Amino acid sequence: MLKIGIIGAGRIGQVHAESITKYVKEAEVKSIADVYLNDQVKEWAANMGIAEVYNDYKKILEDKEIDAVLICSSTDTHSPISIEAINAGKHVFCEKPIDHDVDRIKNVIKALENSKVKYQVGFNRRFDHNFRAVKEAVAAGKIGQPHILKITSRDPMPPAVEYIKVSGGMFLDMTIHDFDMVRYLLDSEVEEVYAQGAVLVDKRIGEEGDIDTAIITMKMENGALAVIDNSRQAAYGYDQRAEVFGSKGQVAAYNDTTSTAELSNADGVTKEKPLFFFLERYMQAYAQEMREFIEAITEDKDVPVGAIDGLKPVLIGLAAKKSIEENRPVKISEISF
Amino acid sequence: MLKIGIIGAGRIGQVHAESITKYVKEAEVKSIADVYLNDQVKEWAANMGIAEVYNDYKKILEDKEIDAVLICSSTDTHSPISIEAINAGKHVFCEKPIDHDVDRIKNVIKALENSKVKYQVGFNRRFDHNFRAVKEAVAAGKIGQPHILKITSRDPMPPAVEYIKVSGGMFLDMTIHDFDMVRYLLDSEVEEVYAQGAVLVDKRIGEEGDIDTAIITMKMENGALAVIDNSRQAAYGYDQRAEVFGSKGQVAAYNDTTSTAELSNADGVTKEKPLFFFLERYMQAYAQEMREFIEAITEDKDVPVGAIDGLKPVLIGLAAKKSIEENRPVKISEISF
Amino acid sequence: MLKIGIIGAGRIGQVHAESITKYVKEAEVKSIADVYLNDQVKEWAANMGIAEVYNDYKKILEDKEIDAVLICSSTDTHSPISIEAINAGKHVFCEKPIDHDVDRIKNVIKALENSKVKYQVGFNRRFDHNFRAVKEAVAAGKIGQPHILKITSRDPMPPAVEYIKVSGGMFLDMTIHDFDMVRYLLDSEVEEVYAQGAVLVDKRIGEEGDIDTAIITMKMENGALAVIDNSRQAAYGYDQRAEVFGSKGQVAAYNDTTSTAELSNADGVTKEKPLFFFLERYMQAYAQEMREFIEAITEDKDVPVGAIDGLKPVLIGLAAKKSIEENRPVKISEISF
Amino acid sequence: MLKIGIIGAGRIGQVHAESITKYVKEAEVKSIADVYLNDQVKEWAANMGIAEVYNDYKKILEDKEIDAVLICSSTDTHSPISIEAINAGKHVFCEKPIDHDVDRIKNVIKALENSKVKYQVGFNRRFDHNFRAVKEAVAAGKIGQPHILKITSRDPMPPAVEYIKVSGGMFLDMTIHDFDMVRYLLDSEVEEVYAQGAVLVDKRIGEEGDIDTAIITMKMENGALAVIDNSRQAAYGYDQRAEVFGSKGQVAAYNDTTSTAELSNADGVTKEKPLFFFLERYMQAYAQEMREFIEAITEDKDVPVGAIDGLKPVLIGLAAKKSIEENRPVKISEISF
Repeated sequence: MLKIGIIGAGRIGQVHAESITKYVKEAEVKSIADVYLNDQVKEWAANMGIAEVYNDYKKILEDKEIDAVLICSSTDTHSPISIEAINAGKHVFCEKPIDHDVDRIKNVIKALENSKVKYQVGFNRRFDHNFRAVKEAVAAGKIGQPHILKITSRDPMPPAVEYIKVSGGMFLDMTIHDFDMVRYLLDSEVEEVYAQGAVLVDKRIGEEGDIDTAIITMKMENGALAVIDNSRQAAYGYDQRAEVFGSKGQVAAYNDTTSTAELSNADGVTKEKPLFFFLERYMQAYAQEMREFIEAITEDKDVPVGAIDGLKPVLIGLAAKKSIEENRPVKISEISF
Repeated sequence: MLKIGIIGAGRIGQVHAESITKYVKEAEVKSIADVYLNDQVKEWAANMGIAEVYNDYKKILEDKEIDAVLICSSTDTHSPISIEAINAGKHVFCEKPIDHDVDRIKNVIKALENSKVKYQVGFNRRFDHNFRAVKEAVAAGKIGQPHILKITSRDPMPPAVEYIKVSGGMFLDMTIHDFDMVRYLLDSEVEEVYAQGAVLVDKRIGEEGDIDTAIITMKMENGALAVIDNSRQAAYGYDQRAEVFGSKGQVAAYNDTTSTAELSNADGVTKEKPLFFFLERYMQAYAQEMREFIEAITEDKDVPVGAIDGLKPVLIGLAAKKSIEENRPVKISEISF
Repeated sequence: MLKIGIIGAGRIGQVHAESITKYVKEAEVKSIADVYLNDQVKEWAANMGIAEVYNDYKKILEDKEIDAVLICSSTDTHSPISIEAINAGKHVFCEKPIDHDVDRIKNVIKALENSKVKYQVGFNRRFDHNFRAVKEAVAAGKIGQPHILKITSRDPMPPAVEYIKVSGGMFLDMTIHDFDMVRYLLDSEVEEVYAQGAVLVDKRIGEEGDIDTAIITMKMENGALAVIDNSRQAAYGYDQRAEVFGSKGQVAAYNDTTSTAELSNADGVTKEKPLFFFLERYMQAYAQEMREFIEAITEDKDVPVGAIDGLKPVLIGLAAKKSIEENRPVKISEISF
Repeated sequence: MLKIGIIGAGRIGQVHAESITKYVKEAEVKSIADVYLNDQVKEWAANMGIAEVYNDYKKILEDKEIDAVLICSSTDTHSPISIEAINAGKHVFCEKPIDHDVDRIKNVIKALENSKVKYQVGFNRRFDHNFRAVKEAVAAGKIGQPHILKITSRDPMPPAVEYIKVSGGMFLDMTIHDFDMVRYLLDSEVEEVYAQGAVLVDKRIGEEGDIDTAIITMKMENGALAVIDNSRQAAYGYDQRAEVFGSKGQVAAYNDTTSTAELSNADGVTKEKPLFFFLERYMQAYAQEMREFIEAITEDKDVPVGAIDGLKPVLIGLAAKKSIEENRPVKISEISF
């Protein structure tokens, strides 16, 4: 029985704790740490049967019984805690992004070089049943050679302006998942990126120097073209679709809904909106992500999303940012590393 | 160039005239007759390039240039005019039903016995692109041996109560098309029928001794089971669907719409309602029906829907009526003929 | 913390144990009993953290710590164990059907008369997200007054012939769920039923005196008409749909799939088949069913599916059987009770 | 009765002749001219009831009875014949594009300045029922302020390499329709364009200096972003979709099929492929286009697609070409005019 410590008891930390408790037989959550521990969190931890609750995450790293840690704290702490955990010999699951800064990610990768720990990055969408079905169809050659990838990724509502300030910008905060999907679905690296951005949802986002609407096009090393469209606010909910078009056909994945019910009346034929947001849409994916992380440890396999997979989308995001600033296509190789 | 005369200048007579003029190169409408000719009809005929307009349909039958007639007058005149036309050596396209009375249909069939004229009955749905695709899949063995057929057939609104009185009842007026579809899609005869009816749409329909809602189940000679559900009023429009289930799978056809547009907003994801009613839904089918009638004449082939196909649905309808009256399953063989 | 004992460690008993362990915080499974205990079951129970494993279910009934039992043993034992459990003051969740014999169900209802225990019957489909969405739309008046209900319910493959012999026949074994759905979706009782059955899937089923294909029509007390179509074998998987049509429109629920992926190629546009069978399709429903059973106990509320709801579908099933035997519509009131 | 002369008796000239004959009561095709007249064309013209067939289009322009001409000859002749026809006082319907050269289009616009003739350009997709439904939803404010437009436009197969040489390149030949759609659906002008192109379908296309796959992104004057993806070859047929996303929701249009039939079997649930190519998909649009051209003349209204609408997509296409050549975003204002 693998023993897990969770660093960061916010929403995503709790999601992972529940996934492990419910769905992963080979692991249990032994401890959780958060600098802002309150009674609600303590009660939740008690209900979950988590034995130890700390303010200081170092207690978890010092615990010799702990096999693996999940780093679910704020983004700026991801890379230093990652390095401490690696040095402490703990397997690491680190939420995305590892960092907004390439050099700090580089330090994590360096720390891993002579280590035997598993290090997985939290790109949960790779574990989504819909996108995985697309990936499998592409990998099985069902659409032939891929030519065009289209990803639509829109949130139901923008984050608070306070969050925008520390988010690293839409490309590193939100689109980073889509950049990961591009690499995952096409099994190829981005060579060059061109981004168009706009502030159409909320002026205050623009006042923070960020954008809320974008179209990003990419040339891939395998010759395919890719395009992502993003919005911070879709009135009908979380819109998460992908289609891959190739020499033999196309495979596409659409949104999930809470039911298949369809109402026909004088106004038309109406189905449900997409599932509200990531916790609803990716609930199954979060569980599967934990299962595969634990499996990588117990069966000593490669993790499905490694540190390099954590780095690459950051490079694409930085290139996209530069593309917006300079209004020109930017090669990934231009992003110094 | 085949010369056509149309008897009855009402809605369906005009539909056929337009189909021939627009889509059938091998034929032209030479004359039209209607007891209630008004200026509007005369103007319409002039616009269509129809040379002759009569009050008396006998003028058409006497015209030696006329090769074929379309009988689109009121139902009670179908069988006598059919016999006159057959005796005059004209090919006949007769709107459904030939008659509500089995003996009168029998007389038409007898008149055809020693005649060489083609006689087609107006079951337009056999020419619908959707139902034909279902038929072709079944005939090609794509679903294996048919086990269950389900037809949903609902009108957008009931006819006037005045019409109900002379309609012959819902089964002979409306369901008769569905009975024809059962025979067409399964390529087998109905052996026994059980019908449940209700008056749920409009009490006045019940006061005329008719029903407006029904479920009719049938045992087929080939062992399959079939079920039709009918309503005189669907709030969302004309609902025309069919599914055939068999040993290897199922094939189904759904409603058509004016466009594929889909609106996603805070209320859900909304598509268009079905096409409003039979003129919209079966526009293509009416044209195809005329094409195949003319083709049967010019190429001396069997008509796609013969007199016997006009008789059989009437027998099923009468059995269904008896089933309602006596609340028991009724064999088609019980309907004296 | 409610303590649960499970009687019967077969597939469905294990499903419920896992649902409670994973999804129901207020309850735990303390013990399980099965006459045919093997090592596999013991290991499974150990993994689930079930403390006690017995051959004899009476041990569970005698355990004063046990608050509620789940009766998941073979159908013939449901009613006697129900009565024992009620008399022992345990809350009961009993798998469907309570019995094939009306008098034995009556005995259970009698035992409940002076008891304060909760008694829930395992009609899991009432907890399905799709059918619940339909139910809620109907209850909210979105389709107006219900006129027609259509249920399609087809299994992916027939049970073993050995099972057919003890199943009580298709109507009591399989259609019984659909009869429950009719009552649930229309919130009205069946007055009269007419059934047509056939042996089209497997001759051996017919040799056991059973059928494998059926269409059942019903008149409801509220005036609506209902129809169920059943097959023991759909080549494309478990087909579970329902539509309710009414004065203001229609609401329908379709099948679930493992993903929304859609492949377009030279052969057409292909989506996935429905989820394979009941364990896949109703996984969520089984969990919700347990949640609501526990909630009925802890909050002292009415159970969502009571003993009378266990009786009614058996009466409809027996009427349907009689309808087949006598080839006539049968009133539910004819089934002596 | 308006009298029409058609210049160019190729496929599209014949399509328009048939549309007018079948669907436009207020006009008739009096004459047709083609430099390559053969017996097949003469026979077709005779069947259509076209009185006069010429080699020399000037005969049509000299005919005082002719009210309007349709220019359906090869692209290089569009602008000179346009000017001749305008000077002869004929209303003009000119197939797209007016020319590949901006100055030659300018000459046409100049010729129109002091003329009273109607001049319509053949962007048929504006008359498509699906795209029109999208346009109407956007114009009616159903999606609020438009933010993102996505157009997918893929042909079922590339043209002959011989045609590629004279086509003006994919952007002026194929994407030009999509550029028109962008302007039509968003009711705004393109400000800047960035295009990525690739040769993935057929090397010979690349050898002619053209591309066969592209993603083109645009900034609109109203602030919205737009993206088109193109391929010369979709294995599943002609893929013609559009979605407009805005502050209140999204409206999308999908492909048409020959029927709604859906086959469920052990391989999945399969619908039909999209209609094969433009003649099938836009059959209705071609007829509607003619109706509105004739209506603009008879009711003296503005044409739905004027000369300026013929110019603008050429400017966007030239900017897109330049963008590919220089791998940078190009403003429309950079294209000298």
